[in-house]
Amino acid sequence: MENAVTTRLGADLLLDSLYQAGARICFANPGTTELGLVSALARDGRIRCVLSLFEGVCTGAADGYARVSGEVPLTLLHLGPGFANGIANLHNARRAGSRIVNLIGDHATWHLAYDAPLTSDIRSLAAPVSRAVITIDRPQAIDACVAQAFAATNLEEGGAATLVIPTDVVDAPAPDAVQPVLPAPYRPTSVSEAIVDDAARALSKAGESIVLLGGNALTERGIRAGQAICTHLGARLLMEPYPAIVTLGGDLPVVERQAYFPDDVIAQMGAARVVLAGARMPISYFGYEGWPSQLVPDERLVRLAEPGEDAVAALEALAARLKAAPAAARSTETPGGSGHSEAALTPASVVEEVLVQLPQDAIISLEGSTLGGPWLRNAHRARRHRVMTNTGGAIGQGLPCAVGAALAAPEARIVSLQSDGSAQYTLQSLWTMAREGLKVTIIVAANHRYAILQTELTRAAVPLDDAVVASLTKLDKPRVDWVALAQGYGVEARRVATNGELAAALEHGLALDGPLLIQAELP
Amino acid sequence: MENAVTTRLGADLLLDSLYQAGARICFANPGTTELGLVSALARDGRIRCVLSLFEGVCTGAADGYARVSGEVPLTLLHLGPGFANGIANLHNARRAGSRIVNLIGDHATWHLAYDAPLTSDIRSLAAPVSRAVITIDRPQAIDACVAQAFAATNLEEGGAATLVIPTDVVDAPAPDAVQPVLPAPYRPTSVSEAIVDDAARALSKAGESIVLLGGNALTERGIRAGQAICTHLGARLLMEPYPAIVTLGGDLPVVERQAYFPDDVIAQMGAARVVLAGARMPISYFGYEGWPSQLVPDERLVRLAEPGEDAVAALEALAARLKAAPAAARSTETPGGSGHSEAALTPASVVEEVLVQLPQDAIISLEGSTLGGPWLRNAHRARRHRVMTNTGGAIGQGLPCAVGAALAAPEARIVSLQSDGSAQYTLQSLWTMAREGLKVTIIVAANHRYAILQTELTRAAVPLDDAVVASLTKLDKPRVDWVALAQGYGVEARRVATNGELAAALEHGLALDGPLLIQAELP
Repeated sequence: MENAVTTRLGADLLLDSLYQAGARICFANPGTTELGLVSALARDGRIRCVLSLFEGVCTGAADGYARVSGEVPLTLLHLGPGFANGIANLHNARRAGSRIVNLIGDHATWHLAYDAPLTSDIRSLAAPVSRAVITIDRPQAIDACVAQAFAATNLEEGGAATLVIPTDVVDAPAPDAVQPVLPAPYRPTSVSEAIVDDAARALSKAGESIVLLGGNALTERGIRAGQAICTHLGARLLMEPYPAIVTLGGDLPVVERQAYFPDDVIAQMGAARVVLAGARMPISYFGYEGWPSQLVPDERLVRLAEPGEDAVAALEALAARLKAAPAAARSTETPGGSGHSEAALTPASVVEEVLVQLPQDAIISLEGSTLGGPWLRNAHRARRHRVMTNTGGAIGQGLPCAVGAALAAPEARIVSLQSDGSAQYTLQSLWTMAREGLKVTIIVAANHRYAILQTELTRAAVPLDDAVVASLTKLDKPRVDWVALAQGYGVEARRVATNGELAAALEHGLALDGPLLIQAELP
Repeated sequence: MENAVTTRLGADLLLDSLYQAGARICFANPGTTELGLVSALARDGRIRCVLSLFEGVCTGAADGYARVSGEVPLTLLHLGPGFANGIANLHNARRAGSRIVNLIGDHATWHLAYDAPLTSDIRSLAAPVSRAVITIDRPQAIDACVAQAFAATNLEEGGAATLVIPTDVVDAPAPDAVQPVLPAPYRPTSVSEAIVDDAARALSKAGESIVLLGGNALTERGIRAGQAICTHLGARLLMEPYPAIVTLGGDLPVVERQAYFPDDVIAQMGAARVVLAGARMPISYFGYEGWPSQLVPDERLVRLAEPGEDAVAALEALAARLKAAPAAARSTETPGGSGHSEAALTPASVVEEVLVQLPQDAIISLEGSTLGGPWLRNAHRARRHRVMTNTGGAIGQGLPCAVGAALAAPEARIVSLQSDGSAQYTLQSLWTMAREGLKVTIIVAANHRYAILQTELTRAAVPLDDAVVASLTKLDKPRVDWVALAQGYGVEARRVATNGELAAALEHGLALDGPLLIQAELP
């Protein structure tokens, strides 16, 4: 391009530092205070920019990109209110340990005191979802602040760091080149031998055991090591309830998912000791009167690897210590398909059809329990694939995560198994899918209600047919037409009500070089 | 309904306190931790519940409701992440001085320490958009906390207060009835006689004057008093650039709007002294190198009434002090209409057609400068109406504000003049409009770009046709089909490209007993 600016500016130095630190993609929804950065992104040209129509799409896409690639994507968001729209998915990203650097353009430092309309307390808004909030207060600090931000993404279990960049810093002449401060590459913390020894000792005692996998243990190596230990001990292999990303299917063993409600988890865990391998200890998702928060007592917990620690290495070390032989590959299964072609869809029949058609090395973005529950009970019957789930419970994560996954793994097919209620929070994702031609096949589980709330209310003996209760949990007046919404964003779409219709639509979608939305009508 | 609960719970006491304090409507998007409140809302039955599919719709609707009614609506939002989705429009509400009480269901107090997936620092998230964040830590404190929250909405210029209510407080047996602590009714702070005297003295000196109206001065009484002063002095009557709600048209005088860019404001203000009547002093919206933040120097400012003070009474007192005679009513105009029926639409021709058709006492929700600029330059030519604008610059305010206005004034016609870029942030508003059968007629100014960003970039001499710049400012790949989106939410819609098509669609929409969306194709 013609370069309209002849002086090298703070923004150019910032972009250069970000690139050198490893940033290759920026999920953007800029405003006026970000235009200096937009110009610099144009001049620099090395960082791919992906526009979304809503900030929650940017942050959710960054989360999905980070989960799939392990790299550090950028977001570019507008001041406090623009950032605020991205908080929900940054909450999920924090729980996923996704390493992200957020860029927020701020008012010029000399303009802040005037409390202009868009002024707000960015630090207070950003802190709950950031390992660090760093304001770059002068051009000389740019390099060091970028390094500090990348370093902060490695803290604890990983997560986002937020850089606040006033426009006068962006627009100032860049200081003379200084030696760039490159952040240390990310490596999970190692588990000590003593911890492994302790775990081996605990497992040598009589009694049932469960190995509960989480974090980086939910990869092939971690699962194989866990399987070897379980086979050796006669133990059960479980996974945390909401993995950031887990490899499943093919010849990998069945990995049972930790249950949701506290009574179910308590029944599932029985009297077993539970080896925590990258997973948090089992707790109740919400606090229910009469049920404990902590669902396995301390004396039955064996803490092998905390979240953020290298659970794979710890499991392999433990397997070696126990002299557990590598487990045999499981023989792969051939799913039978969704059943009678004319029959009305059920969540189970949707899952059966996906089990049949899911291509090798696909990535599933899973949001909502309607399809999420049955999928994770049956995923071992599909070809080898990866699954991302909603780690933090902030809804509106599934579609954006699919966007990010598709950009991180352009060769993979992305399948989004998505509840209709949660899809509404970030439906603008569809536009970015169309714009970027992403190979995402979405199945919207259209049951036209907040099913999880109805389940909870039923457990609490509240009548669902009360007018007020119904008005706050049913989404049937009017029913949302997802085919129309998708078309509004330039995404091809089909509505299906029977197994046969779904099979045909899915086959069509999985062959498309772009997105397809399937509205699956469910009871 | 059948009452499944025999004991009166904390939630019941809370609802009763809220009702007694004046709450009559609740804009809700509840989750599991709010289900105790949902049950209580059902049992109580006196507070109207309006469901939205996204929290930004709830908070924006509460803002619109508060602006139109002056009453205090509730929102019901789910934990930190759900609240976060509502922050952008609460930022606007704070700038509008809209009095709102947010209810957030929190984890049970005894569950918080376990850092369950949805746990976050709610206080840090809520503080920037709340006059107070109050956690109700025990059932005995419910009454007092509700009174404290309502009192906080009166602080400074008004705004939201946030009540955080753990589920164990909601579910606990209510304490025996105590005398409810009712909040004091809202009244703007009075301006002292000394201040009015000082203003009169300042205006008695030679030189040009401007009376800059804001806050409650933008009502008929305030505008008439301002007009009397201006006529008496030969001064100009202006309004703040982004009023929360302003009465215009009919026989009211022309009120010139403060300009946007600093150079324009400086030219507009000239050498005049500026009487601030409920308005902030003129500052630049953003800080631009080479331009000051403060656009009228202190020595030319006459501070009659601060935002949140009673500017109407101050203006009337000042008019009396100056012995300014009441100004004559302006003779009403008859707009000519949008021009040649076959001609392609322009922002000016859209505005001309709305000027013709806008019914008496309509309320306009204005977001974006494409139609907002020309409307506010011409509004005096329409029938008497009120206009709400985006007070805080957090985009996605127009459609939700229209929802709230329609519920606050069911007899009024609501017209939403809405830019297409900003409409995307809270498009789920359309579903609530369909669900509640709201008489909202939306004109989406479909220019398929972020026009304001292009304007800013052009001022900064950045080429708009650069590939990266275009990819972050043009919304044309693909173009959003607003007719399809509206139909997806059950809202009737039409696409129009000529003056004649717009005139017919608008006539149809203004006669409907429900919403209509008109996608107006603009250059």
